[in-house]
Amino acid sequence: MSDKTMNTNTNPEDTVLLDAVTWNEQGLVPVIAQEAVSKDVLMLAWMNRDALLETLRLGEAVYWTRSRQKLWHKGEESGHTQKVKEIRLDCDGDTILLLVEQKDRIACHTGAHSCFFRVMNKPKLTWDNFFEATKDLKPEDLEDFLNPKDRYPGA
Amino acid sequence: MSDKTMNTNTNPEDTVLLDAVTWNEQGLVPVIAQEAVSKDVLMLAWMNRDALLETLRLGEAVYWTRSRQKLWHKGEESGHTQKVKEIRLDCDGDTILLLVEQKDRIACHTGAHSCFFRVMNKPKLTWDNFFEATKDLKPEDLEDFLNPKDRYPGA
Repeated sequence: MSDKTMNTNTNPEDTVLLDAVTWNEQGLVPVIAQEAVSKDVLMLAWMNRDALLETLRLGEAVYWTRSRQKLWHKGEESGHTQKVKEIRLDCDGDTILLLVEQKDRIACHTGAHSCFFRVMNKPKLTWDNFFEATKDLKPEDLEDFLNPKDRYPGA
Repeated sequence: MSDKTMNTNTNPEDTVLLDAVTWNEQGLVPVIAQEAVSKDVLMLAWMNRDALLETLRLGEAVYWTRSRQKLWHKGEESGHTQKVKEIRLDCDGDTILLLVEQKDRIACHTGAHSCFFRVMNKPKLTWDNFFEATKDLKPEDLEDFLNPKDRYPGA
């Protein structure tokens, strides 16, 4: 997919759908991607109207990259695409939640399953890198390891 | 808690912790609140440095409301506080994920469990309100009802 013109043929139904979203002053909305099966939160990215339309058209997550200022079909280079299972909108319409099937279970550009691999160690006041600590674990052990039990007793 | 000055006694450890966060041009970071037990995504809100420090201090979620421009101890009026079980930071430091214990299992000001109760019905191109559809269901039935299976076959 190129970042050139697209969706110039927006139909009235699309407009109603898009107008329910509260776009910010840059015409963007934050989008949380959550793995549908595990319910792990994978990443947060942004969409503009075209990105949401492309997501609907493709059935895969298409975001707007603020750094590169273009549409970004997630996984177009890495192969780690996100098949969209469900799209939710919050009460005031200013955040979208995507439930996705994450290809290869890798969402992060670092190779991690989720972008949220840094965990605050409150007693030490550090951000521990659980990706480094866990990257050689098997997936079934990873779930246990990441499941919050007593790691944050101070809260 | 008032919205007056606080944490004027920021210590060096806090500073290191806070400096790992990529604050946006308004000094804010988006924060995803996820229920620790169910892994449901509850809401998205924002924090500034003081909000994160207050969250650490209280052990309950404290956000920055952009509309009211003040610190907001979530649940201070409704009673629906969020006990923080874990704080995670994403790969590039520009999003925080809070794992919380949601008091009364109600995160949304509408009374809904999660703010993300509107679900896109792709064939109809509408946002269906699953809070209305589900508010009389028992919690154990709600999980089944909200679990995405075949509701979004077009994706």
